[in-house]
Amino acid sequence: MEGKYIMLVQKYVDMLQGKSVIRTLSEFATARGKEIGYENVFDYSLGNPSVPVPREFTDTCVKLLQEKGPMELHGYSQSLGIPSVRAKVAESLNKRFGMNYTGDHIFMASGAAGALAHAFRLVAEAGDEIITFAPFFPEYNPYVNLSGAVLKVVPPQTKDFQINFEAFEEMITERTKAVLVNTPNNPSGIVYSAETLTKLAEVLNRKSEEFGDQIFLISDEPYREIAFDGKEVPYVSKFYDYTISCYSFSKSLSIPGERIGYVAINPACPDAEKMVVMCGQISRGIGHNCPASLMQLAVAENLDKTADLSVYEKNMNLLYDELTALGFTCVRPGGTFYIFPKALEEDAVAFCNKALKYDLVLVPADSFGCPGYFRMAYCIDTEKVERSLVALRKFVETEYPSR
Amino acid sequence: MEGKYIMLVQKYVDMLQGKSVIRTLSEFATARGKEIGYENVFDYSLGNPSVPVPREFTDTCVKLLQEKGPMELHGYSQSLGIPSVRAKVAESLNKRFGMNYTGDHIFMASGAAGALAHAFRLVAEAGDEIITFAPFFPEYNPYVNLSGAVLKVVPPQTKDFQINFEAFEEMITERTKAVLVNTPNNPSGIVYSAETLTKLAEVLNRKSEEFGDQIFLISDEPYREIAFDGKEVPYVSKFYDYTISCYSFSKSLSIPGERIGYVAINPACPDAEKMVVMCGQISRGIGHNCPASLMQLAVAENLDKTADLSVYEKNMNLLYDELTALGFTCVRPGGTFYIFPKALEEDAVAFCNKALKYDLVLVPADSFGCPGYFRMAYCIDTEKVERSLVALRKFVETEYPSR
Repeated sequence: MEGKYIMLVQKYVDMLQGKSVIRTLSEFATARGKEIGYENVFDYSLGNPSVPVPREFTDTCVKLLQEKGPMELHGYSQSLGIPSVRAKVAESLNKRFGMNYTGDHIFMASGAAGALAHAFRLVAEAGDEIITFAPFFPEYNPYVNLSGAVLKVVPPQTKDFQINFEAFEEMITERTKAVLVNTPNNPSGIVYSAETLTKLAEVLNRKSEEFGDQIFLISDEPYREIAFDGKEVPYVSKFYDYTISCYSFSKSLSIPGERIGYVAINPACPDAEKMVVMCGQISRGIGHNCPASLMQLAVAENLDKTADLSVYEKNMNLLYDELTALGFTCVRPGGTFYIFPKALEEDAVAFCNKALKYDLVLVPADSFGCPGYFRMAYCIDTEKVERSLVALRKFVETEYPSR
Repeated sequence: MEGKYIMLVQKYVDMLQGKSVIRTLSEFATARGKEIGYENVFDYSLGNPSVPVPREFTDTCVKLLQEKGPMELHGYSQSLGIPSVRAKVAESLNKRFGMNYTGDHIFMASGAAGALAHAFRLVAEAGDEIITFAPFFPEYNPYVNLSGAVLKVVPPQTKDFQINFEAFEEMITERTKAVLVNTPNNPSGIVYSAETLTKLAEVLNRKSEEFGDQIFLISDEPYREIAFDGKEVPYVSKFYDYTISCYSFSKSLSIPGERIGYVAINPACPDAEKMVVMCGQISRGIGHNCPASLMQLAVAENLDKTADLSVYEKNMNLLYDELTALGFTCVRPGGTFYIFPKALEEDAVAFCNKALKYDLVLVPADSFGCPGYFRMAYCIDTEKVERSLVALRKFVETEYPSR
């Protein structure tokens, strides 16, 4: 083997060098857990759903396995998804959000990542631009850039983490094929208001007119079901006809490992049905095909159910109250399981490194496009959140006594 | 909506025009089935596994659902696959084929299509060439061409459907990054002999030396478990160190809808482990991530089991005997659920069109790179195969009486 030369595709080799800060911190937490017991590490690094799968979902899977014929259950799914499943997804969305989808507007995808991979390829190719807003999920970089398009990031509006429209308008060019939004937002926890979405649609329509080419809105909404204070999350597609909604059941049903979600294209968009059929062609190129047939059939029976998501709101309230009591600048999250305070010094990396001494694993937000802030993913046991507050107070009082 | 202009990515729009001959024939069979009863349509168009899922597989799924904790069962899988599953796949391959994989050489993928999508991107990028041999699975065209590389097809060796080495050697250039083989083969049913694979390795080593860049061998082997006459299918990776094996459980366990398979990289290949890690990076770009976690855990408990595949051999024997008795030129399949006779006239499309009058749905092999031949996918009930023989004889005696 030695001395032998093999040539691998360089862009992927290069990616091996970069290590995500989240991954590094999560590894720290695991290693530290081995020393002092993982229950004593306040690991706020990973956005991994922590509430149990609803019992109904498990029961549905078992029932399907025991009662359905094997061909019907495990046979090839049509490349756009199982028709009955697509129809049920449409029906559920119509009922909940007053839309008028049919199954022909739905493409079953393997989680939000799969859904987004198709959405990007529908509307953008090499050299085109997709715009998103900071703070943003850092995986959008490889997702978009490896599709051939380029991701451009609008600087954050830190006052309330709604959209910085002034900067946004300046960044739109004739190469802008789509705008990517994520509400409720990872990492800020913010829900875009109806006012924000109305204004966004207005800008997109005006700019589309100006450039003679309709700009699409790609809405990544895996956190749609996790909303606080009894508020409704405005359904993005209601505000703009040219919306491609990308959903995942990972968070609502706590089944991230099962890789299931969908693309829903607004029926008011010309060629909406054609775009869904195109998703099937895109799949052939990326080796994607469909989510597991058992999972398609199982989620279809549980579309309007969720895991008990109230834990996340309880955790949010505990953290928000303590953080603001300690003097942190922090916009109150409207949903998700993230909170996004400003660090107590300019350099959030230094801040988060100091926190590690107190076994608090916080993620600096530089990679989210928002330096000076940090993210806490509070999809952990409430009991642990409560214990972490003591560590948090000790950390702040010891390291930042003059505050 | 009318008059509104939207711009979609043209290469996918263009693909909507092309309709696969297999799909068209399958739709014919379904439509005809509605007229005369599907049991009376001898539908040999689709390669859809027809034998039931093994009982053990279903039992494993139910047991996992009832006994595993929801986080362990449905939580995020590591991006390369669940480590225990990867280790078990390695162990099974070592035991069966005398290899020395570890879990670090295995990447869990969503079926063979997913596995191939990663394999191509590991070694080839825009402008590079991947060579395969006719007859070949027509989906290789979009799989390779949409990855950016170009698929080149070596003309068939119709004598025995082993490799046409003379034509092959002439087609290798410095842009050839990989050679793609499929044995047992769809559509020919042929198994590459140890002699063929030895010679293939010799050519690849010599040409790699000549061009100063190792050419990879990508082995698509979803039919590995379906072999006839008690013969062993030579394990491709044994013959060549630079082999990327792509496997699917679709056929062995009759679970094509569940989208699960893997990539296995020969440990003797320099950077084999690194290549597996690169697969995780490729996934980020194509939105793939992992197969469903439940399915990973379930196949890991059933690696050395298969559905009752003996039906396929029984069907093959019935068809082969009748076809040869009727005077067809036909190489005896060594595996799969396909047989690939020469048509009774030069134009196989015309031949297959005539067969439709007898409710025989046969697929002309033009799109498989082998005009003049046709494919029969005999993954159907044996009882139906038996009845089809009567129709086949009537078809031949009526349409080709002078034979």
